Amino acid sequence: MSERHDIEESLSGEKGTKVGVINCGSSSIKYEVFDRKKRTKLATGLVERIGSAEGRMRQSRLQADGTFVEQVHMKPLADHHEAFNFMVDMNRENRIIRDDAELFCVGHRVVHGGELFREPAIVDDEVVAAIERLIPLAPLHNPSNLLGIEAARMRFHGIPQVAVFDTAFHQTLPPAAYRYALPHELYEKYQVRRYGFHGASHAFVAREAAQFLGHPMEELNLITLHLGNGASVAAIRAGECIDTSMGMTPLEGLVMGTRSGDLDPAIPFYLIRQLALTPEKVENLLNKESGLKGVCGFSDMREIQQRASEGDERAALAFDMFCYRVRKYIGAYCAVLGRLDAMIFTGGIGENSAAVRSAVCAGLRNLGISVDARKNGAVAGKAAEIQEEETAVRVLVVPTNEELEIALQAEAVIEKRMKTGQ
Amino acid sequence: MSERHDIEESLSGEKGTKVGVINCGSSSIKYEVFDRKKRTKLATGLVERIGSAEGRMRQSRLQADGTFVEQVHMKPLADHHEAFNFMVDMNRENRIIRDDAELFCVGHRVVHGGELFREPAIVDDEVVAAIERLIPLAPLHNPSNLLGIEAARMRFHGIPQVAVFDTAFHQTLPPAAYRYALPHELYEKYQVRRYGFHGASHAFVAREAAQFLGHPMEELNLITLHLGNGASVAAIRAGECIDTSMGMTPLEGLVMGTRSGDLDPAIPFYLIRQLALTPEKVENLLNKESGLKGVCGFSDMREIQQRASEGDERAALAFDMFCYRVRKYIGAYCAVLGRLDAMIFTGGIGENSAAVRSAVCAGLRNLGISVDARKNGAVAGKAAEIQEEETAVRVLVVPTNEELEIALQAEAVIEKRMKTGQ
Repeated sequence: MSERHDIEESLSGEKGTKVGVINCGSSSIKYEVFDRKKRTKLATGLVERIGSAEGRMRQSRLQADGTFVEQVHMKPLADHHEAFNFMVDMNRENRIIRDDAELFCVGHRVVHGGELFREPAIVDDEVVAAIERLIPLAPLHNPSNLLGIEAARMRFHGIPQVAVFDTAFHQTLPPAAYRYALPHELYEKYQVRRYGFHGASHAFVAREAAQFLGHPMEELNLITLHLGNGASVAAIRAGECIDTSMGMTPLEGLVMGTRSGDLDPAIPFYLIRQLALTPEKVENLLNKESGLKGVCGFSDMREIQQRASEGDERAALAFDMFCYRVRKYIGAYCAVLGRLDAMIFTGGIGENSAAVRSAVCAGLRNLGISVDARKNGAVAGKAAEIQEEETAVRVLVVPTNEELEIALQAEAVIEKRMKTGQ
Repeated sequence: MSERHDIEESLSGEKGTKVGVINCGSSSIKYEVFDRKKRTKLATGLVERIGSAEGRMRQSRLQADGTFVEQVHMKPLADHHEAFNFMVDMNRENRIIRDDAELFCVGHRVVHGGELFREPAIVDDEVVAAIERLIPLAPLHNPSNLLGIEAARMRFHGIPQVAVFDTAFHQTLPPAAYRYALPHELYEKYQVRRYGFHGASHAFVAREAAQFLGHPMEELNLITLHLGNGASVAAIRAGECIDTSMGMTPLEGLVMGTRSGDLDPAIPFYLIRQLALTPEKVENLLNKESGLKGVCGFSDMREIQQRASEGDERAALAFDMFCYRVRKYIGAYCAVLGRLDAMIFTGGIGENSAAVRSAVCAGLRNLGISVDARKNGAVAGKAAEIQEEETAVRVLVVPTNEELEIALQAEAVIEKRMKTGQ
């Protein structure tokens, strides 16, 4: 059986044959291990409750028969270093990575790269210092991301660590798109500008879509819709991102699970004044109690659709608002792109909700966008085309894979350095 | 000379032949007097520095020969009542309105009508109380607007006063467009929603455009662009406004003279934290120090164009950002409208800057929008059509007249009451 042989090869202990991906949060570490050559997933897992006596690791790993087996391990985890070592030890025990040298490199998701990082960066002391300097822009994320990088540097001597930034893909935005109409010094001194996020996902599905369509990225104008619990849109002209809906932070743009997205900027002040809340409380309310959850009490689109279909008016409104806001961004980016070749749905909602895709595209025929109900209903887990015959814009559904994208970008930057010797 | 005869008739003291319009600010009263039948302007003026010893009134009034003459009167003005009486007295002295009974009615611009007013309202104690209740939504404007209404009620016994709301035209927005993705109770209890402003201007130019195009409003899908020191866009489907760029306050939307327009809603919190400013200071910064002025130091579009043409990069950026943001709204509203028949430029910038009109429309050919450079350059003070031949969307420039619109709406609501007796 050649498949079994392939898997055995993937799981063999050859040097430099695997790529790890780390996404480190404030009390959790998500990870994934890929076969470098075949780009297949060998294991994925989550270490959580870091800092508590009830530390836990859930892991799903490939077996020789091609199926995945799940396991849960428990251990008190004092900090990220302990959690990281626990994760590596369990992977060794489960024979995913028997020797650290099997790792070609490790890619770390880093949320904010500011204007400093237009590309993934091989981690050294300077890169760590730069990510630290960017903490004011992402106070909730960059510190955790750094904890993962530091733990990996401690544990994996000699294995290159690569920081892959959520913002990097959007560094091609022109000033008219990335600047806010605020006093100049807020940009110069305080880095207030649009950065955009979900870069790995937008980059991944744009490239997959180009492959699917059989055209080089450089010839295509695309709109990528990453619709999940977090949600963002990107306008991509000839392979370069020229606008995106998330801003200086991931709060701007579309309606999200619990985030408000676009708001009158006077509203925070009104809430501080009228509700006598502190700015911290209002910021928390916009991030955690708003979005779909704020409108109807539920943040999960499946539940919202279910309830809307049962006559829940607030759920129906949340659904409408979500789709309406997406539609406005599609229109805006059609204007900005001048010509639109294809539009790509991805993310948990984008890949799985035919109802959302259908509602988003309803009434967009004047922009050349129209969805075939049968094709839209038949989408199932892989790249598919759903536009009506004879419409100008191809509408695709493409499953995203942010972890694989981080692995690929990390690998590419190392290979480039090996080639150029720089 | 029949023209002279007409003017003499307008200036004659017949009862109920004139309509006054009052726009009352915190230290100023702007007013206009119209001939009710001919809809022509008889006088316009500004009383300013109310509350100071250097009160001043500038007036421009029609003379029998058809020209306007300007005059300035000085007087210490303790409060709005004194200012109002001064204004009325001067108009009597200048023979604009020799007897209060010449006024058919007076229309008052009121900024915020909340959800209470979908139409102009004949002022009584209840209406005054309702406008008072809306003060939290427009703390800078509604109190001044009320001062004007109260002064007029004191002075003009028996002459109907009508409140005409900036927000009323936008009360046809559907919930998906007017709701923000915020906790439900912020809408229910605190009236947090999109209201929209500049209603008189959008209504006026939409109707003028329909007349120009020779179609009833009910058959037209329009985008109206009110571009001035304040700026907003409206999407109008079959005569009803279905979306607009200003929000709960006039801060949201386009880049304006000194207002930021759209922002990541997290930015206010970042500024409070990083610059250690109070919320009040940040709100002031977004309203008074941002927009075009924030980006390049100048809020006047004529100066910005001049400087940009001389190589000032920040002025060029401010110009680009202004036009880019307008373009995104045009795209968004094309998506929302489904079909666009005509787009209308108005306001100080929209009527006078061929460069802005040209830059806004550049690259919108895929939306059916394209401007003819010669026609665009030839616009001069009256309604004109500037689209290229054979493009789908008619592009118009229509001078706005908010004061006349307020006069017409005030008159109409009185006439309706007289007819129905209600």
